[in-house]
Amino acid sequence: MPHRLVPQSVIKRLPIYLRVLDMLVQRDIDVISSKDLSEETGFTAEQIRKDLAYFGAFGTRGTGYHTEFLRDKILKIIGLDRKTKVIVVGAGHLGFAFTRYTITKNPYVNVVAAFDIDSSVVGSKILDLEVLPVSDMEQVVEKEEVKVAIMSVPAEQAQEVANKLIDAGIRAILNFAPVRLDYPEDVYIHNVDLTNELQSLIYYSTTEQEKIGRLSEEQE
Amino acid sequence: MPHRLVPQSVIKRLPIYLRVLDMLVQRDIDVISSKDLSEETGFTAEQIRKDLAYFGAFGTRGTGYHTEFLRDKILKIIGLDRKTKVIVVGAGHLGFAFTRYTITKNPYVNVVAAFDIDSSVVGSKILDLEVLPVSDMEQVVEKEEVKVAIMSVPAEQAQEVANKLIDAGIRAILNFAPVRLDYPEDVYIHNVDLTNELQSLIYYSTTEQEKIGRLSEEQE
Repeated sequence: MPHRLVPQSVIKRLPIYLRVLDMLVQRDIDVISSKDLSEETGFTAEQIRKDLAYFGAFGTRGTGYHTEFLRDKILKIIGLDRKTKVIVVGAGHLGFAFTRYTITKNPYVNVVAAFDIDSSVVGSKILDLEVLPVSDMEQVVEKEEVKVAIMSVPAEQAQEVANKLIDAGIRAILNFAPVRLDYPEDVYIHNVDLTNELQSLIYYSTTEQEKIGRLSEEQE
Repeated sequence: MPHRLVPQSVIKRLPIYLRVLDMLVQRDIDVISSKDLSEETGFTAEQIRKDLAYFGAFGTRGTGYHTEFLRDKILKIIGLDRKTKVIVVGAGHLGFAFTRYTITKNPYVNVVAAFDIDSSVVGSKILDLEVLPVSDMEQVVEKEEVKVAIMSVPAEQAQEVANKLIDAGIRAILNFAPVRLDYPEDVYIHNVDLTNELQSLIYYSTTEQEKIGRLSEEQE
C-alpha cells in the first residue's frame, strides 16, 4: 500500500467517511448502501468507491458497505486504531480551546500532555490535563514516543519550537501559527491559518460590483 | 475583474502576501524585489507574478513591488479596505478563542457582535465584546448589514443556525461545526474541520511499514 501515492484530497475525505460510519455504528446500522453513504457524506458513490479502492475492496455489490468493518478499516488506514498519542504546545486561549475540543470530540486521539512557556498558564488544567512547562517537552516526547504535535504558539516562536519537536522525534505537526516553517522532508506539517481562512472567505463575500467599483475609483 | 474565475488557490495566497506586505510596511521597507518577496512568502517570483496578474500589473521591472501600494491593492482585492463587519455565533471555548484571536490579530475585520444560546455564556465578555443572546442575531445582522459570520456551534444546531443567518442576509460563513451544510449557490461556506485536519495529519505520521503490517495481520 504505497500511501504516499494516495492524493491528499482522498486522505482529507477519510475522516469524513469515518465520522459518518461512527454515527451509523452508534445508531446500530450494520449495512449501508453506497447510495445512502453518498447521501450521508455528500460525495458521490463513484467518488467513495474510487477513494476506498486505493486501500482495497470494501463494498459488496448489491449489499453495500458493512459499517463497523469499514469503520475499523478506515481507522487502520488513517493509523487511528491504536489511539494516537498527541501533545499540544502552547496552551493560550486557542491552544486551550483546541485541546479541550480534541479531548472531548476526538475519541481516537490520546492527548498525553500540554505545554506552555508562560508560568501563569503552567499548572492550570485543561479538563484533567495539567499544563506542563515547555522545558519538559522534549523529555515527554522521547519517553512517550509521541509522533504528533499540535502547535499553537506565537509566530515568532514557531520555528524554534518546531525544531525542538522534530529533534525530539515528532514527525507531524498541526501548526496554528501564521508563519511558514522550514522542516525536513520526512516530517509532515499542516498549517491551519484562521486569519487566512477568514480573509479568503471575505474575498468571496464581497460582490464583484463592489470590487470593480472600488478598483476603478482608484484608477480614475 | 471576473473574480469568480480566479482559482481558489490564488485567493488562498492573497492573505499570505498581505501578511508579508504588512510586516514590510511596518518595518518601513518601501520597495521589495520579486526575489525577496519570493523569499519572504515561500512562493516563487513567477507564482507571485502570475497570481497578481489576475488583478492587474503591480510590479515594476527592475525595481520590484512598492510594498504599501501593493498591500493596499490586495486589501481592495480581498475586500478588506473597509473594515469588514463580522459576527460570531457560538461563544463556547472554541468560539471564544477564535473571536479573541480575530479581534487581536486581524486588524482588517470588525467583530460587531458575538451570540450564544447558552444563558450562562450570554452577558460574558470577549475582551470588550459582550456576548448577546442568539435571539438578537437576525436583528443585528439586518441592522448592521453584516455579510460574514463565523459559526462555532454544535453540529446538530449548525444547519438551523446557518439557515437563519442566510435568511437575515449573511453571504459567507466560516463554519467550525463538523457537518456538511446545505446552502444556496450565492452563499459561500468554508469549513474548518479541526478533527479532520488532525486525523489526516495522523495518516501521514504513521509509517507505511506500520500500516502494511497492521493491514496484513488482518488479512492473514
